[in-house]
Amino acid sequence: MAEYFKGIGQVKYEGSTSKNPLAFKHYNADEKVGDKTMKEHLRFAVAWWHTFSALGADMFGDGTLERPWLAAADPVQQAKDMADAAFEFMDKIGIDYFCFHDRDLVAEAPSLKETNERLDEIAAYIKDKMKASGKKLLWGTSNLTGNSRFMHGAATNPNAEVFAFAAAKVQKALSITKDLNGEGYVFWGGREGYETLLNTDMGLELGNLARFLGLAVGYADKIGFKGHFYIEPKPKEPTKHQYDFDVAAGYAFLQKYGLLNKFKFNIETNHATLAGHTVQHELHYARVNGILGSVDANQGDMLLGWYTDIFPTDVYGTTMMMIEILRNGGLPGGLNFDAKVRRGSFKTDDLFYGHIAGMDCFAKSLKAAHGLLESRELDDFLEKRYESWKTGVGAEIVQGKATLEGLAEYALAHDSPKSESGRQELLESIVMRYLYA
Amino acid sequence: MAEYFKGIGQVKYEGSTSKNPLAFKHYNADEKVGDKTMKEHLRFAVAWWHTFSALGADMFGDGTLERPWLAAADPVQQAKDMADAAFEFMDKIGIDYFCFHDRDLVAEAPSLKETNERLDEIAAYIKDKMKASGKKLLWGTSNLTGNSRFMHGAATNPNAEVFAFAAAKVQKALSITKDLNGEGYVFWGGREGYETLLNTDMGLELGNLARFLGLAVGYADKIGFKGHFYIEPKPKEPTKHQYDFDVAAGYAFLQKYGLLNKFKFNIETNHATLAGHTVQHELHYARVNGILGSVDANQGDMLLGWYTDIFPTDVYGTTMMMIEILRNGGLPGGLNFDAKVRRGSFKTDDLFYGHIAGMDCFAKSLKAAHGLLESRELDDFLEKRYESWKTGVGAEIVQGKATLEGLAEYALAHDSPKSESGRQELLESIVMRYLYA
Amino acid sequence: MAEYFKGIGQVKYEGSTSKNPLAFKHYNADEKVGDKTMKEHLRFAVAWWHTFSALGADMFGDGTLERPWLAAADPVQQAKDMADAAFEFMDKIGIDYFCFHDRDLVAEAPSLKETNERLDEIAAYIKDKMKASGKKLLWGTSNLTGNSRFMHGAATNPNAEVFAFAAAKVQKALSITKDLNGEGYVFWGGREGYETLLNTDMGLELGNLARFLGLAVGYADKIGFKGHFYIEPKPKEPTKHQYDFDVAAGYAFLQKYGLLNKFKFNIETNHATLAGHTVQHELHYARVNGILGSVDANQGDMLLGWYTDIFPTDVYGTTMMMIEILRNGGLPGGLNFDAKVRRGSFKTDDLFYGHIAGMDCFAKSLKAAHGLLESRELDDFLEKRYESWKTGVGAEIVQGKATLEGLAEYALAHDSPKSESGRQELLESIVMRYLYA
Amino acid sequence: MAEYFKGIGQVKYEGSTSKNPLAFKHYNADEKVGDKTMKEHLRFAVAWWHTFSALGADMFGDGTLERPWLAAADPVQQAKDMADAAFEFMDKIGIDYFCFHDRDLVAEAPSLKETNERLDEIAAYIKDKMKASGKKLLWGTSNLTGNSRFMHGAATNPNAEVFAFAAAKVQKALSITKDLNGEGYVFWGGREGYETLLNTDMGLELGNLARFLGLAVGYADKIGFKGHFYIEPKPKEPTKHQYDFDVAAGYAFLQKYGLLNKFKFNIETNHATLAGHTVQHELHYARVNGILGSVDANQGDMLLGWYTDIFPTDVYGTTMMMIEILRNGGLPGGLNFDAKVRRGSFKTDDLFYGHIAGMDCFAKSLKAAHGLLESRELDDFLEKRYESWKTGVGAEIVQGKATLEGLAEYALAHDSPKSESGRQELLESIVMRYLYA
Repeated sequence: MAEYFKGIGQVKYEGSTSKNPLAFKHYNADEKVGDKTMKEHLRFAVAWWHTFSALGADMFGDGTLERPWLAAADPVQQAKDMADAAFEFMDKIGIDYFCFHDRDLVAEAPSLKETNERLDEIAAYIKDKMKASGKKLLWGTSNLTGNSRFMHGAATNPNAEVFAFAAAKVQKALSITKDLNGEGYVFWGGREGYETLLNTDMGLELGNLARFLGLAVGYADKIGFKGHFYIEPKPKEPTKHQYDFDVAAGYAFLQKYGLLNKFKFNIETNHATLAGHTVQHELHYARVNGILGSVDANQGDMLLGWYTDIFPTDVYGTTMMMIEILRNGGLPGGLNFDAKVRRGSFKTDDLFYGHIAGMDCFAKSLKAAHGLLESRELDDFLEKRYESWKTGVGAEIVQGKATLEGLAEYALAHDSPKSESGRQELLESIVMRYLYA
Repeated sequence: MAEYFKGIGQVKYEGSTSKNPLAFKHYNADEKVGDKTMKEHLRFAVAWWHTFSALGADMFGDGTLERPWLAAADPVQQAKDMADAAFEFMDKIGIDYFCFHDRDLVAEAPSLKETNERLDEIAAYIKDKMKASGKKLLWGTSNLTGNSRFMHGAATNPNAEVFAFAAAKVQKALSITKDLNGEGYVFWGGREGYETLLNTDMGLELGNLARFLGLAVGYADKIGFKGHFYIEPKPKEPTKHQYDFDVAAGYAFLQKYGLLNKFKFNIETNHATLAGHTVQHELHYARVNGILGSVDANQGDMLLGWYTDIFPTDVYGTTMMMIEILRNGGLPGGLNFDAKVRRGSFKTDDLFYGHIAGMDCFAKSLKAAHGLLESRELDDFLEKRYESWKTGVGAEIVQGKATLEGLAEYALAHDSPKSESGRQELLESIVMRYLYA
Repeated sequence: MAEYFKGIGQVKYEGSTSKNPLAFKHYNADEKVGDKTMKEHLRFAVAWWHTFSALGADMFGDGTLERPWLAAADPVQQAKDMADAAFEFMDKIGIDYFCFHDRDLVAEAPSLKETNERLDEIAAYIKDKMKASGKKLLWGTSNLTGNSRFMHGAATNPNAEVFAFAAAKVQKALSITKDLNGEGYVFWGGREGYETLLNTDMGLELGNLARFLGLAVGYADKIGFKGHFYIEPKPKEPTKHQYDFDVAAGYAFLQKYGLLNKFKFNIETNHATLAGHTVQHELHYARVNGILGSVDANQGDMLLGWYTDIFPTDVYGTTMMMIEILRNGGLPGGLNFDAKVRRGSFKTDDLFYGHIAGMDCFAKSLKAAHGLLESRELDDFLEKRYESWKTGVGAEIVQGKATLEGLAEYALAHDSPKSESGRQELLESIVMRYLYA
Repeated sequence: MAEYFKGIGQVKYEGSTSKNPLAFKHYNADEKVGDKTMKEHLRFAVAWWHTFSALGADMFGDGTLERPWLAAADPVQQAKDMADAAFEFMDKIGIDYFCFHDRDLVAEAPSLKETNERLDEIAAYIKDKMKASGKKLLWGTSNLTGNSRFMHGAATNPNAEVFAFAAAKVQKALSITKDLNGEGYVFWGGREGYETLLNTDMGLELGNLARFLGLAVGYADKIGFKGHFYIEPKPKEPTKHQYDFDVAAGYAFLQKYGLLNKFKFNIETNHATLAGHTVQHELHYARVNGILGSVDANQGDMLLGWYTDIFPTDVYGTTMMMIEILRNGGLPGGLNFDAKVRRGSFKTDDLFYGHIAGMDCFAKSLKAAHGLLESRELDDFLEKRYESWKTGVGAEIVQGKATLEGLAEYALAHDSPKSESGRQELLESIVMRYLYA
């Protein structure tokens, strides 16, 4: 078996002052942070698509990335070589999980039947490698955007035949996910939306999307798949407008169609910002509504209006994420690096630099967030800030004992309530202290 | 009684080629479009705040607008003069409805009690003028953002005393709205959101917001207010993030807290675009979910990231709106001009030019949209586009008879489904035809 | 020679009420508007890339477009078939001009030498077809973004060898453009910018960009190319930040490097809006600075942060453009449809619908703008608005006779200057009148 | 003299682990970083407007901020009390510089003459306090946006009388700035732009803006003002479009009107991002063009489309700034905190928390940037990346010896140039190392 990352050994933790570009400065897998190790807290996953199968093409240029494992002409051999590279990479970088779309694993064949056969062969190959290495599948999914037949959507296609074809793909991907002991299954509805409302029947399409998800749940029950289902919101791109715009839109949808108990959300940083939210907002909103599932870890360029999927290096931002994740008691899912090296970073070792940057970024953030929460500096502030809801008129309101007219009388008797400072600058200074102490 | 708009008489329809700046070119109130008159279709309202009480200050400059009706030093006299101007304006422009916040009607007094007394006096004054003129109240609301006590929110304030104060304001505003036979009541939660999550307990705040709305509904039932309740989404501004981000976020919220049957949405064009949606999207989404209520008619500047509330002159955009409104069978509410003249348009006659522009814009759009729908050119296209859902595998899916594995078998047997062109350019040409024929 | 657009004949003008989707509603080539025909005013061009060689792939999906002229396996034969299709299309749609990148004309070969040979062959083929048909080349250009060798830029590449390679491509493209009597040559610096400043020497790169343009000008002089040189600004995409961000950035650059007398600007609607400007702004700014050259006609989706290159159907926007173009006395260049049908509009006849929509849109706008300018309603307003600069203190200032301290004395003596209303709403109503009379 | 910040003494450096909210964690004024102290590197200034005279009103709400020094009814007494507070604050926080607009210093009077008298009185008062304290004026400016007379602009007003009035204000502000030994004078053209091009003669307005700046330069020469002149770009807000959109637009303007040798730029972080640039870009672009002057230090909220002027806490971003500033050999100007506490942070001590956060943020960044530059890790990378320009064909190009046809021959002989990885991820990791070691 070829070694694809020659000259690179196991990436090790060397501490924050190490100048070794192939060492971790903050991520120390077995170091305890609170009662769990970093590895247990962070549950990193490698994304098959960005890291192994993508070639770096963009809308204005051809692929640039050197990916020697894609050299084979035979698609199944190519897929096996890619799996070899993937397991070598996961081993050397020290990441235990991976995620895939069906189409990443092996190129589609002319017929669905033959594609499925290819998938079976490569899935078996991967299964063996998982057994040998102990690597695990965080989640699987099916690509329902790439083939031209999905130009008008998959579950929301105007053509029922395409819906059926998409269903077949999900059936296969779900079945493979189950077979590989996947811990989750994700739906990202990249073309489940519209280009123009002039040609769109949104009511029917939303209903069909719900039916599609319901069919997948039914099939999962039948085959005994116990993993989590996740919806991954994104506001737009490739479509002009996607139905799963953000967590709130997905939450409204799940409630309307009675799917709430079956799904949580896979929240991506770059998708959050494209929707006009911080990722912290999306995580917080999901957390307080009990629907926080997994995370696609990356960062967007805030001045660009399309997905850039940069490896995270904004420690402030990831610290805000870790606060939410720790307050959630961790994630049912994990932190999947849905991140890509820039197309100008075309060497294979750039994949290491990207992942090391991202892992160190989250490790530093984990420690900062943990320290901050342990200190209770934020919690004590919040407790005091909201204390009026524990007694008196506040408690009555919360307990449902108030009426509007009763409160009006109360206000007439207690005119001119006083405010306290929100202390935003002070709180931001406190966060800085945990980052730069 | 002073005449404030001297030299301007009743604005009349003179047809599309009239060069009279004080005449309508398209809005002909009693002209039938389908089975209703323009006036019945459009149900325009004047916004008390932008048109009568605002002075044109912005974040970088003082007020500019000449508003002679605000000259009186005594706040109640000032309020009455403003009401005189408002009824004169409504009469001359030919608009039957108005909308207000409590604070627009009359300046707040040092105490809540005295403010309420002022409100009673001016409400009685307005009631008389309504009786005399036949003008009607589309909806009322309470301003819960302006006073510094609302700096941290109203229903979502960390201080329960402020919640109670806000409740008192809503009680009064609702009571006046009922007294003036208001057809609706709006909640725009301008500061119901957060500046930073560091100092925010979103879970508690969302619960309190739901309690607040529930209390208002309870009070409305008690006093026999039969009007509609509307939530007006806006994503941000003044807060960094508002809970009622868009219709979907509001819909998720109403479902979670069991308030769905009590509320519809008041959708504002400029708020929609600030949230990353077209207003057509928001109207369509509300319509197919049965929660389309009323419209705040204006337009944003798509290159500016704050509310600009420009009078609508984008006929293409308003035609897309009228398609949704006509398909909804009209609105329970109406088209409220939540629009303001630029602060450089500081003369009182500019108020006429702004409203005439907006009314003509919607009138032209109404005719275009009606013609388009009458022709069924769009509907026929849609019917054909989605016909696969009426029979065969499509019908089975819609009727809930399909399974994922059954569809997978179907797809294996019917590989390579074909697509049809989405015809976006052709459809856009058809729309142009109804605008420029 | 194959007919590629079977069943479609010459597209004719049938007037604004025609329901024939393959007829013009407003564009009537030989109709006089003022002293020029529509054809002379508008000088439409077809873009080889979007219309003939592109396949509709996006970042999330494969090509969708049916383009039978690309069926041949041999690249030169494919290129000739494409040229056949192009001339058939231009003939049927009635457009006299086209634009190309070298790479659109024929696929690149493994070596530069062979690529150049292919270019010579296809250029000769096209030259013959031009002679036979009377079609003309509005401008040519070289694609310096697509090949992976340009991943770090062309003229601004850190590697001088890539600069040389890019120079070779421009030399060839310029030579072909001259040979085909091209009226212009465009530089769009798609990767002339940076991904991160951490690895960028902007000072050197800007200097190199200037040298590159200077070399092209020198070569043009040598071969006797008399056409116009245009810079096409775009703020970003594909790079994170492009040096030719907008017209102002390009204007600063040309002045600094002494290139101002050699270049004008090719302004694209969608690029303007991505930079935070209306296209009207870019045209106006270029016009008053004497650097307005040509237009890439399309429109962006104002809610999307990437180029969408939609066929123009926003008549209001194109009317604002035509006001600038008419005030400029026309364009040295023309209106090139750098616009693409949506990838869901994959049939060959969709190309007609797109172009017809765009041509009608500009034709309607031309008439509206011409009417508006003929009436002098705007000009009279402007003349009056700025009349204070013609006499008194205004004239002194303009003539350079004032001093700051003199003006201070004047102001002390003439305190409290009065303003006039800016009349924005009235002016917008006037524009509407010319659109919908 | 009243003490306004009771209970707060001199803010001291206590090191990165101090939990004292009123101590610096990183800013240690006299600590050497390289050959200069932190104080010499950073040259912080306090902004009179945000910190002393503003009340926290926004477009949707009244002022909230407790500012006891504004209690006096008499405007001049109020201004003196404000100055007392300012000098007390500067003393306690340890900042040596301040910046003002004329209007911040004292409220405008009904007449220009009386306003000027007020300004004289307060300027004398401040001059005494400066002498006593050693505090210095970084720059002064005149507010040409706030008064309603500037609704249509100041130097670009359609009314020449308003231009004269603005000139009078600049004459006075410049004279005071000179009198107080101000080191600079800033022009921010808040309303020098347009709301709609329909009523705008941009050519005349740009010429007038140039004349206005020229008059100020002439007056400065006459009175012997030796300070720097700065232009502060902002793309929009309050106007729809401001002429000084960004540094590039300002640079184009200065070149066209022959003003380049007289002006540099005052670059504001939040203005940069509103224009679609990072502040690092603006600083870098200004630096390589020799026009980097001063900095308005704050940060924007990247998800909000209006100025938020938040105190800087994004250490990554400020480190990118300090890299540029150090490479520039420091700034002619300084770091002015054009930043404001949130309106919910309404207590006077919040002003300390905000400034401490910002000062610590820049101090930490200064050390990180200095370490990074000292190590030459970035420079060595850049030197190697661009080495091809030092010899061979690269050197010929740079030296102006190349021709396009010569390079074409070269490329034919040296086909297929190779690229090197851009190493963005690795470089970002290196930056992280200097932040978190």
